[in-house]
Amino acid sequence: MHEQMESVEALWADFATPIRSAEDYINSLRGRPMNVFFMGERVPEPVDHPVIRPSVNAMAETYRLATEQPDLATVHSGISDRRINRFLHVPVNPGELVAKHEMQRELGRRTGTCFQRCVGLDAIGSCHSVTFDIDGKHGGQYHKRFLAFLERAQAANVVIGGAMTDPKGDRSKPPHQQRDPDLFLHVVRRDRNGIYVSGAKMHQTGAVNSHWLIFMPTMRLTEADRDWAVVGAVRVDAPGLTYIVGRQTNDTRIVDGGAMDAGNAQFAGQESLIVFDEVFVPHDHVFMDGEWAYASSLVERFTTYHRSSYVCKTGLGDVLIGAAASAAEHNGVEGASHIKDKLVEMTHLNETIYSSCMAGAHQSKPAPSGAYINDEMLSNVAKHNVTRFPYEIARLAQDIAGGLVVTMPSEKDLQNNEIGPLIRKFLQGRDGVEVVDRMRILRLIENMTIGRNAVGYLTESLHGAGSPQAQRIQIARSMKLEENKARARALAGIDSSRKPSR
Amino acid sequence: MHEQMESVEALWADFATPIRSAEDYINSLRGRPMNVFFMGERVPEPVDHPVIRPSVNAMAETYRLATEQPDLATVHSGISDRRINRFLHVPVNPGELVAKHEMQRELGRRTGTCFQRCVGLDAIGSCHSVTFDIDGKHGGQYHKRFLAFLERAQAANVVIGGAMTDPKGDRSKPPHQQRDPDLFLHVVRRDRNGIYVSGAKMHQTGAVNSHWLIFMPTMRLTEADRDWAVVGAVRVDAPGLTYIVGRQTNDTRIVDGGAMDAGNAQFAGQESLIVFDEVFVPHDHVFMDGEWAYASSLVERFTTYHRSSYVCKTGLGDVLIGAAASAAEHNGVEGASHIKDKLVEMTHLNETIYSSCMAGAHQSKPAPSGAYINDEMLSNVAKHNVTRFPYEIARLAQDIAGGLVVTMPSEKDLQNNEIGPLIRKFLQGRDGVEVVDRMRILRLIENMTIGRNAVGYLTESLHGAGSPQAQRIQIARSMKLEENKARARALAGIDSSRKPSR
Amino acid sequence: MHEQMESVEALWADFATPIRSAEDYINSLRGRPMNVFFMGERVPEPVDHPVIRPSVNAMAETYRLATEQPDLATVHSGISDRRINRFLHVPVNPGELVAKHEMQRELGRRTGTCFQRCVGLDAIGSCHSVTFDIDGKHGGQYHKRFLAFLERAQAANVVIGGAMTDPKGDRSKPPHQQRDPDLFLHVVRRDRNGIYVSGAKMHQTGAVNSHWLIFMPTMRLTEADRDWAVVGAVRVDAPGLTYIVGRQTNDTRIVDGGAMDAGNAQFAGQESLIVFDEVFVPHDHVFMDGEWAYASSLVERFTTYHRSSYVCKTGLGDVLIGAAASAAEHNGVEGASHIKDKLVEMTHLNETIYSSCMAGAHQSKPAPSGAYINDEMLSNVAKHNVTRFPYEIARLAQDIAGGLVVTMPSEKDLQNNEIGPLIRKFLQGRDGVEVVDRMRILRLIENMTIGRNAVGYLTESLHGAGSPQAQRIQIARSMKLEENKARARALAGIDSSRKPSR
Amino acid sequence: MHEQMESVEALWADFATPIRSAEDYINSLRGRPMNVFFMGERVPEPVDHPVIRPSVNAMAETYRLATEQPDLATVHSGISDRRINRFLHVPVNPGELVAKHEMQRELGRRTGTCFQRCVGLDAIGSCHSVTFDIDGKHGGQYHKRFLAFLERAQAANVVIGGAMTDPKGDRSKPPHQQRDPDLFLHVVRRDRNGIYVSGAKMHQTGAVNSHWLIFMPTMRLTEADRDWAVVGAVRVDAPGLTYIVGRQTNDTRIVDGGAMDAGNAQFAGQESLIVFDEVFVPHDHVFMDGEWAYASSLVERFTTYHRSSYVCKTGLGDVLIGAAASAAEHNGVEGASHIKDKLVEMTHLNETIYSSCMAGAHQSKPAPSGAYINDEMLSNVAKHNVTRFPYEIARLAQDIAGGLVVTMPSEKDLQNNEIGPLIRKFLQGRDGVEVVDRMRILRLIENMTIGRNAVGYLTESLHGAGSPQAQRIQIARSMKLEENKARARALAGIDSSRKPSR
Repeated sequence: MHEQMESVEALWADFATPIRSAEDYINSLRGRPMNVFFMGERVPEPVDHPVIRPSVNAMAETYRLATEQPDLATVHSGISDRRINRFLHVPVNPGELVAKHEMQRELGRRTGTCFQRCVGLDAIGSCHSVTFDIDGKHGGQYHKRFLAFLERAQAANVVIGGAMTDPKGDRSKPPHQQRDPDLFLHVVRRDRNGIYVSGAKMHQTGAVNSHWLIFMPTMRLTEADRDWAVVGAVRVDAPGLTYIVGRQTNDTRIVDGGAMDAGNAQFAGQESLIVFDEVFVPHDHVFMDGEWAYASSLVERFTTYHRSSYVCKTGLGDVLIGAAASAAEHNGVEGASHIKDKLVEMTHLNETIYSSCMAGAHQSKPAPSGAYINDEMLSNVAKHNVTRFPYEIARLAQDIAGGLVVTMPSEKDLQNNEIGPLIRKFLQGRDGVEVVDRMRILRLIENMTIGRNAVGYLTESLHGAGSPQAQRIQIARSMKLEENKARARALAGIDSSRKPSR
Repeated sequence: MHEQMESVEALWADFATPIRSAEDYINSLRGRPMNVFFMGERVPEPVDHPVIRPSVNAMAETYRLATEQPDLATVHSGISDRRINRFLHVPVNPGELVAKHEMQRELGRRTGTCFQRCVGLDAIGSCHSVTFDIDGKHGGQYHKRFLAFLERAQAANVVIGGAMTDPKGDRSKPPHQQRDPDLFLHVVRRDRNGIYVSGAKMHQTGAVNSHWLIFMPTMRLTEADRDWAVVGAVRVDAPGLTYIVGRQTNDTRIVDGGAMDAGNAQFAGQESLIVFDEVFVPHDHVFMDGEWAYASSLVERFTTYHRSSYVCKTGLGDVLIGAAASAAEHNGVEGASHIKDKLVEMTHLNETIYSSCMAGAHQSKPAPSGAYINDEMLSNVAKHNVTRFPYEIARLAQDIAGGLVVTMPSEKDLQNNEIGPLIRKFLQGRDGVEVVDRMRILRLIENMTIGRNAVGYLTESLHGAGSPQAQRIQIARSMKLEENKARARALAGIDSSRKPSR
Repeated sequence: MHEQMESVEALWADFATPIRSAEDYINSLRGRPMNVFFMGERVPEPVDHPVIRPSVNAMAETYRLATEQPDLATVHSGISDRRINRFLHVPVNPGELVAKHEMQRELGRRTGTCFQRCVGLDAIGSCHSVTFDIDGKHGGQYHKRFLAFLERAQAANVVIGGAMTDPKGDRSKPPHQQRDPDLFLHVVRRDRNGIYVSGAKMHQTGAVNSHWLIFMPTMRLTEADRDWAVVGAVRVDAPGLTYIVGRQTNDTRIVDGGAMDAGNAQFAGQESLIVFDEVFVPHDHVFMDGEWAYASSLVERFTTYHRSSYVCKTGLGDVLIGAAASAAEHNGVEGASHIKDKLVEMTHLNETIYSSCMAGAHQSKPAPSGAYINDEMLSNVAKHNVTRFPYEIARLAQDIAGGLVVTMPSEKDLQNNEIGPLIRKFLQGRDGVEVVDRMRILRLIENMTIGRNAVGYLTESLHGAGSPQAQRIQIARSMKLEENKARARALAGIDSSRKPSR
Repeated sequence: MHEQMESVEALWADFATPIRSAEDYINSLRGRPMNVFFMGERVPEPVDHPVIRPSVNAMAETYRLATEQPDLATVHSGISDRRINRFLHVPVNPGELVAKHEMQRELGRRTGTCFQRCVGLDAIGSCHSVTFDIDGKHGGQYHKRFLAFLERAQAANVVIGGAMTDPKGDRSKPPHQQRDPDLFLHVVRRDRNGIYVSGAKMHQTGAVNSHWLIFMPTMRLTEADRDWAVVGAVRVDAPGLTYIVGRQTNDTRIVDGGAMDAGNAQFAGQESLIVFDEVFVPHDHVFMDGEWAYASSLVERFTTYHRSSYVCKTGLGDVLIGAAASAAEHNGVEGASHIKDKLVEMTHLNETIYSSCMAGAHQSKPAPSGAYINDEMLSNVAKHNVTRFPYEIARLAQDIAGGLVVTMPSEKDLQNNEIGPLIRKFLQGRDGVEVVDRMRILRLIENMTIGRNAVGYLTESLHGAGSPQAQRIQIARSMKLEENKARARALAGIDSSRKPSR
């Protein structure tokens, strides 16, 4: 059993110097005493692990963008009264949600993958309003604590990760009826300094690349689940935390094949299983403890924010459209009507996703705390389109690319004296196109449609922020069926005083 | 040859008393000396024609909404400095475009059909900015004239129709090369009072129910087409105008079957072929005459406005979703999972359309004249979704409705003493549902999916404001392929200084 | 209460002279003492009713084809040892099912609508094997009776209709629990001569144009539903039968608009509600009475046959593809790549339907009676495609046709001296195309996509032979999930001896 | 320059002992003097290369099936008058094509991947009829030579690969205008013993695992391309041949992660770039040399055969459906209505593909040589469905699987003493499911949807046997537009003697 008494000040001591650049950020990750595993081995320094590094690079772009395009990626915070990275900001008007989405699309364009910082961002927004609501009802200190936490984070410019998805075990049972109580994260002990939590969080995006984690319940709870109704913030290197980084398609290509074979050598996403073993959380970092009735609104607000954050995939879509257009050009078929038509279709689907996300931001409404939250119906509609259209965009990209996208020799073949020249001879496309450029573009298309970043572009688009069925349930709840039935009855000439009995 | 010398004041004399209500509007249509034909016969008073009347009623709702929900359907105009019907307003900020779209959806919900007033509305917006641009270049009076015209219209609260689509003849040839010059509307004569135009405009929405018409060119023109580059406003009862109202599916049901068989007895759309035979336009009502270079931007701005106006179809979608939900309830299957799933899918598609339209309004940009115009890419994307999703929504509505939607006896059968009781006996659904209500809802679904208002909900969704291919061409023009290719090349690791030769 | 003692011989006396031609057939319908209603009025002679006549013509084509293409539409019957119309034949090998489907497609091409004779054909096939099975178990005379009935029908060359769909009332209850027992057809009395049945059958295709009807239960029954487990054959003019012909979209166009406005003036479908009021069936025409356990296999075999019969819609698809291609030609755009691409897509979808139907015929299997029945999985898959693809084909046809398809003036306008010339002037397409031909093709497209025959091409494709969900249930039953799971477990390297507990 | 004089007998000497089993086959591949490269290194013995071996295993199943299910996978050959492996057979009736497709589906089920032997099979069929046609016209010996070659192959029971796709270079130019003549395979020299060919063939399936290769032209040729009009057979270990095995997604998982991480450790596909450097072909193995006019029919017949061979993907679909059903069971959600509905949809799409392929086999027609060839339209329709539906099936499989499919720890993590127990604790699903089984099934789904065998299930489904556009061109050629237009004109009431001028 861990004995934990560290003061909040001590916990923040390492972050006294604010992170000012992408390079600062990368350095800030080094030397932390973390339990990180990948493919059965402990990773001594994740930043330097060749498979993990591209995910660090992608996260680092959230800092680089803030220095390169401060209008887009920074914003003034009323909480700390300073200009901060937008990833640490609670939006207080629709325009800030709109700007957030533009920033996310731009980062998608820059990285061609998941840059991992949105879960924490959307956790911040949700906790802001839910802590406010709890205190409004119960008169506690959660909101004040949360604002203090957030102000420190803004000052330090750290990465906050969010952790929501529990393992769930037998899905037909609530937390308190599971055979193993740890299948949902819960409080195992409380003392005068704080609380101790155990459990795990699945497929956590960018956790290893974060500085702090906010953990939250994953679903509606009942009174008997009181100990599972817990929200708090911990350092990612807190004692008791273990990270098992998941395997991704083609993750080791960067090691065994080289930069070209990787397709996008610089950037990738990251997801891990985080195990909590009696992890201490000081009271000042506890934002919910037992208020089970608020679990559902926390989940709903988080998913409403987060489903619209999938606007980032339109940035990936931009890259893939560009890659397909380049491949067509390399093959000399960019003028064929069916090629042009497929590029239009890809764009149409991509912009349809964009429009659903943006409409929900423009039509956001304030919670009592003042935080603006995307329109719930539109956010669910947006995410639901994300579960469909990227798959079709990817299929069209492969269509334009041609079969070579999956049968191409390795970069190492190209470097071989005997066969390298043969590849250069036979893969030559139209005049003026370098064979190596043609190969690179095809590798990028492979990367995004059936390679490492297809994890983020496709499967994560399906399941992140809730699987398709979760959106359908939410859409069903937001439907105004009774209003619509009344309209229909009126136009059909039915006396509105009569209704079918129930 | 007509001799025309009426002053502008004389032309407006009939509109001295502003229209203040739906009833005023209907009365204002009576007694006009118009050449209207339907099914081979001259229609002496269109307002009283049973097939045309439902279209008058639908237009009248644009007045009723203004009295019932003035916040939604009226707005302050800076041009006439008074509160006016929103259908006569040039939007000067994004919020006004957003409000316009909410109004359009609400009218779709109220009428379940095309209420016909958007073409004129979008013509106003486009002419505002294009006349400004022409004068800015050529120093003319078009914009001033247009503002004066619009101020009169706002004061009188009249319906302005818009007329754009020419017959086109041989589509491979520009206007001046057509065998018959009238296949595109053109100036045939000019005198000191004004100009005389001949030609025709096809499938003109609500023309017979309007007070004034603005005619505009239908496509990009060249210098040789100078006489076809003409924009002007005429009274719909101007000498030389003939209207041939088109047939619609089930248009005569209201006559031969009665209200129930019509499905939606109160409301319908209207489209007609308008023939111009040397129609006089006084100079003050001429807004373009020969400035061929501006035809394309007029068309582009009009279609950008108008493609987003198809947000109205989401109001029809609301009605159809409500009708399908009612039908399911009547059959006692509203709890079946596949039924609920289909209602969710219908809603998802409907809200996807809504989101594309709204996003383009929120992200509108001002033209030099100050008029705000929807985002071009998003407006085209929105309309392109409109060419697809209503068909699937309609299919799902028929799926839920059951086969009875197309095999049901007539209202007259129900009234027959011999078979009426048999129908009541055998069409009884679940307890508490009146057979006649069940039939009415099914007739409404028939009306919107394979009946009179399917014209508006489906085929007009396909072709109105430009056929699908027109949107694809516009999306192709708005695509940022070069930017996207550059992004892809960068992520693929290609030296950005090298490019394929062209 | 009717007293019925007519002998079977007497019932067949009117059919002593075989029908030899389409003309014979039409004459055979005249002068029958039937209770037929349409739009609230008794129809004295359905053959001469202008709205009903096109459906008679469509049925007559099944006779015409037999004389014009005997190889396709006739076949040797082992039952009566003569060459008969294929619509009266029980298929005894896969080739005969294949030929049946080719005949159905050809009739779809000839008529552009539902020719109505397939329900009876598929009823024959199902009754053949089910009566055989019942007698095999219970030792009765049903199969012998059925063969005798069929031999007479083959000799007389009559139209046999099939009637299956009961009104069903409260769908959550079986027949014997309905408040009104007539909501499912049932035996109300038995005497030494035969049985008496009451109830109704909904949306019965071509019933008024038939000579005999075979009625069958509509779903799985239990012992308590014994009186509802009844199959028999009656003359369509039997005392106690009443027909209420359903309204179809644009059904009265042929009357109020003329041949051109009708789109397809010659051919249409027909569906009616048939009410049975103590209709007498002599024992020799009773093919099931109380054997409730066989109701489900009768329904399953019938739907398996009938779902594949929807191959006829590919014939309609051929017509619509041809109409769209003609419309493109009239507009002078037949060479545009997007037009060609849409025609290819329409063809691809149409042939996909065809292939599913044909595969199920080629892979048919014999029932114990020797009758061949389509492959159950493939027949359901085929019909399920029919519930989707015609809607998309229709949408594409409207896309190619242009908006004129729903805004076009009437034929009567064309005949008007004043406006006829205007229409001819402005609707002229490319050189060499007659305006009237252009209009006719557009009216045909209207007819098939949003007009009278859209009932058959679209809504009937959705609901005929069972709604989409019915096919999904059947596909679920035919899925080999356990085999597939075993394959997956083997390839995944799971020890096949372990299985999840249930 | 190679000097080649080996007699045909000498070339066949190594195959004197027929291959009788899967084990024989694997042994037959050992010790061959081949130039095979993978990832920049020469592969001394492909059979023992861990990445290549799964592809050998998949090919070996074609032998195992022949011993385990001889009815399915062997057939009597009239050419050699013996029972042979069906992969060496020229089908001479529809039933043999049907049996071929059933065999292909079964092998898809057994291997979950591409078993690589169909290209050669379809090459045999095409060469049989085309050599017959050439000789019929020109009186040569090609057909006789081909039969002799085939008889030897049947006796030896070898694997024949087929090689068609040339690199093509600048796609706007025919072979003789390419800057480098080798961009299409061609004859570089002829002597009294035979011919010498140079060039390359791209993405050749299973080439390294074959014994013989038949090379064929890839497109329609003109007289100037005479030297490129060449067909012949060579041993895969012939001097002058070099193989560069392409990289596949996750190909090295089997090495770096172990069997579980591979998903399907036993089976995989294989594609390589084959370079021909003056490869000698003795006259007896030359089946076309200069008869350029027959190139197009060779290509068309090959693609007609081969597009239907994609029925194999329905076997992969069976596996994926089974895997998804297992995953649902492991999660305890197999009873959820949306899960069942998705399994039904996957099955519906899979069986639609199957039906198109089978219909085209049943409706095959004989070429003059007596070889039966699938119906051209239906074969193209079938393949076109294969370019779409597997992507949707894969998406649905991922939907059912849940996000863990791409975030799961490695098998090596499971074996680690520290974190293995954590994984077992937190990945436990419902009672009775082994964590390792759950992981294996998810790895299989990963393998087929975003892993190694997604290459075969998805991208190869898109591009193999021609890209989607190739099928659309072929469908366009097979469309009977004129017949359809005539039907439409007749039904629309247009005088058939008038036609639009051209």
